[in-house]
Amino acid sequence: MYNFRFSVPTTIYFGKGQISHLAELKDYGSKALLVYGGGSIKRNGIYDAALKILGDAGVAVTELSGVEPNPRIETVRKGVDLCKSEGIDMVLAIGGGSTIDCAKVVAAGAVYDGDAWDLVLDPEKIKEALPIFSVLTLSATGSEMDEFAVISDMSKNEKWGTGAQALKPTMSVLDPTYTYSVSKKQTAAGTADMMSHTFESYFTKEPGCDVQARFAEGLLKTMIKYGPVALEKPDNYDARANLMWAASHAINGLVAAGSQPAWCVHPMEHELSAFYDITHGEGLAILTPAWMDFVLKKDPSTAANFAAYGRNVWDIAETDDEKAAKEAIAKTRTFFFETMGLPANLRAVGIDSDEHFGVMAEKAAKGSEGCFVPLTKADIIEIFKAAF
Amino acid sequence: MYNFRFSVPTTIYFGKGQISHLAELKDYGSKALLVYGGGSIKRNGIYDAALKILGDAGVAVTELSGVEPNPRIETVRKGVDLCKSEGIDMVLAIGGGSTIDCAKVVAAGAVYDGDAWDLVLDPEKIKEALPIFSVLTLSATGSEMDEFAVISDMSKNEKWGTGAQALKPTMSVLDPTYTYSVSKKQTAAGTADMMSHTFESYFTKEPGCDVQARFAEGLLKTMIKYGPVALEKPDNYDARANLMWAASHAINGLVAAGSQPAWCVHPMEHELSAFYDITHGEGLAILTPAWMDFVLKKDPSTAANFAAYGRNVWDIAETDDEKAAKEAIAKTRTFFFETMGLPANLRAVGIDSDEHFGVMAEKAAKGSEGCFVPLTKADIIEIFKAAF
Repeated sequence: MYNFRFSVPTTIYFGKGQISHLAELKDYGSKALLVYGGGSIKRNGIYDAALKILGDAGVAVTELSGVEPNPRIETVRKGVDLCKSEGIDMVLAIGGGSTIDCAKVVAAGAVYDGDAWDLVLDPEKIKEALPIFSVLTLSATGSEMDEFAVISDMSKNEKWGTGAQALKPTMSVLDPTYTYSVSKKQTAAGTADMMSHTFESYFTKEPGCDVQARFAEGLLKTMIKYGPVALEKPDNYDARANLMWAASHAINGLVAAGSQPAWCVHPMEHELSAFYDITHGEGLAILTPAWMDFVLKKDPSTAANFAAYGRNVWDIAETDDEKAAKEAIAKTRTFFFETMGLPANLRAVGIDSDEHFGVMAEKAAKGSEGCFVPLTKADIIEIFKAAF
Repeated sequence: MYNFRFSVPTTIYFGKGQISHLAELKDYGSKALLVYGGGSIKRNGIYDAALKILGDAGVAVTELSGVEPNPRIETVRKGVDLCKSEGIDMVLAIGGGSTIDCAKVVAAGAVYDGDAWDLVLDPEKIKEALPIFSVLTLSATGSEMDEFAVISDMSKNEKWGTGAQALKPTMSVLDPTYTYSVSKKQTAAGTADMMSHTFESYFTKEPGCDVQARFAEGLLKTMIKYGPVALEKPDNYDARANLMWAASHAINGLVAAGSQPAWCVHPMEHELSAFYDITHGEGLAILTPAWMDFVLKKDPSTAANFAAYGRNVWDIAETDDEKAAKEAIAKTRTFFFETMGLPANLRAVGIDSDEHFGVMAEKAAKGSEGCFVPLTKADIIEIFKAAF
């Protein structure tokens, strides 16, 4: 187990009706920037509920709406300008991971003397931020309880993750009923996203990370159990609640602290989204089994890891590691592409040419030295092709 | 899943050499009360290391030593007096759970205008506390990352737990090598203690707590794997590290949030310690299987819970719930009393009469309505007798 620092300072209010705790924002100032996306929060009543609670608490609201899936730096800049011109005290995101990610970089940009894109390219520059709050409406990214944010500059085909202690939300409201209206497509993509976060830290060569591995397996079992239930019965409380809570823990440090290698699949997916603006979770689902196949082939010692995954998550009884590993990968593929109905290859999400594979692979290979199995540009091209 | 508030604000520095982070205490003031127990930290060098780091950081130290196992209110009062007379800014505990528990109530008492015993009897009275820090030397209670403290007044045979958000440590240093010198007896008792904390929240009738249940099972599997390793090889890093990290998570809210019933076994054990000053973890080990037997008999519907425990923690293949439940209880008994060598009954820890069972049971039954299976005074007497 590596040495680590563990810090999860976000207070979570979990369950039905917990939005009432937004009244506590008054302890952080009198002016909030409300950040949201396309307006679904107006249709489902969350917007009205939040404004009423904030109004009663004496917190004035300025709005930044229209945050995109794969949120853009232009929107972040607009939010930063609002914070500076209006003297905003805190940032409240209502939405999914994209909205929260945008709000985080706005909160950091508001107290940074320069362009917010600097903070995306260099996390070291994020020393402080306005207090960040969120009301979650989509279980997927875990942004409600972690330090990360992913922002895109589509004009340059750039999509990068940044992260800092100051980006951890002060408080997040997790009401599973707010995810009842999430579409089948987004429910499936969200499940793939949270599973991928778990995989990124679970597959490690560092020995002795038992606590972390058992946590990861528990999260994966829960996602695999409830993902299909949520597809079938969108208003099943247990399914929505367990997916929501599992997604938060998949990336808050619980699995990564002490075991964490550099992430492998996310950097590849970020290139797909940067070039083609596809749904993040779908990209991850497409790449994950192809990545598993490739890694097992390139480094046969990983059979032990994939076999443990198969036995502890999928209850595979096979005692031969290589056979168990292959069975586990097959189970993963079937789960994503049949059970959850996710698109099974890059063509299915509209990527109909390999023309950018070279440049995408070159960028995705940066920082790969610390990965579970380090990948070269050529390796990543092979994975893209296998997923094509 | 119940609604819940989740908050784990303690920053953890985990691993070899992390004591260097005590230098950060200078950010909280210039005067620390150093709380410790019987002096083992002087023999193993931790005391000298801490004083050097604090000295270099410009933090002056006042000492409260001699904290007892089952820490006494008299010691707490002495610490409170020191804080008030010396103008102490923060409290640093170096030791196990007893030392940290004592430090917590000292920290709260230092800013309370009344007798510290009030804060033990009524947690509601704990509104604030001096910042609390700890360097852990024994894996067991989880006090390094939770809100609880247990204090005794032996003159009245009273031992009560208290708890408040303000009692959560600001920062704790968890260096597994500091537990290499923990005796076999304390290693076994600590393992029983952390397992009991996990059981207290794991056994619940609330449905849909999958995330919490899988976390609990992962913790239990880890404790069961590494407890015997630590007994056999006291300086096995993986064993000490996993036990340490598992103990912290057993009680920090991860398992309890959303699933928590009132605790069942701890209240009974507190009476044993209050009357006989026995080792807490040994008392828990003795009572746990007797409690499981009794609960299964009183409420046969609990067979489903104990069977799930058996299958998911002990890999029991039995498909009949009642048989699997009994097998799981037998495994627990064997683990405690054979594998870990813990005393198997009350007589083995010097309790040679049932004279106090009535008064102890009456006190332990208070608050039992919310338990997994509520217990009456008569029920608890029966459990004491079975454990005798």
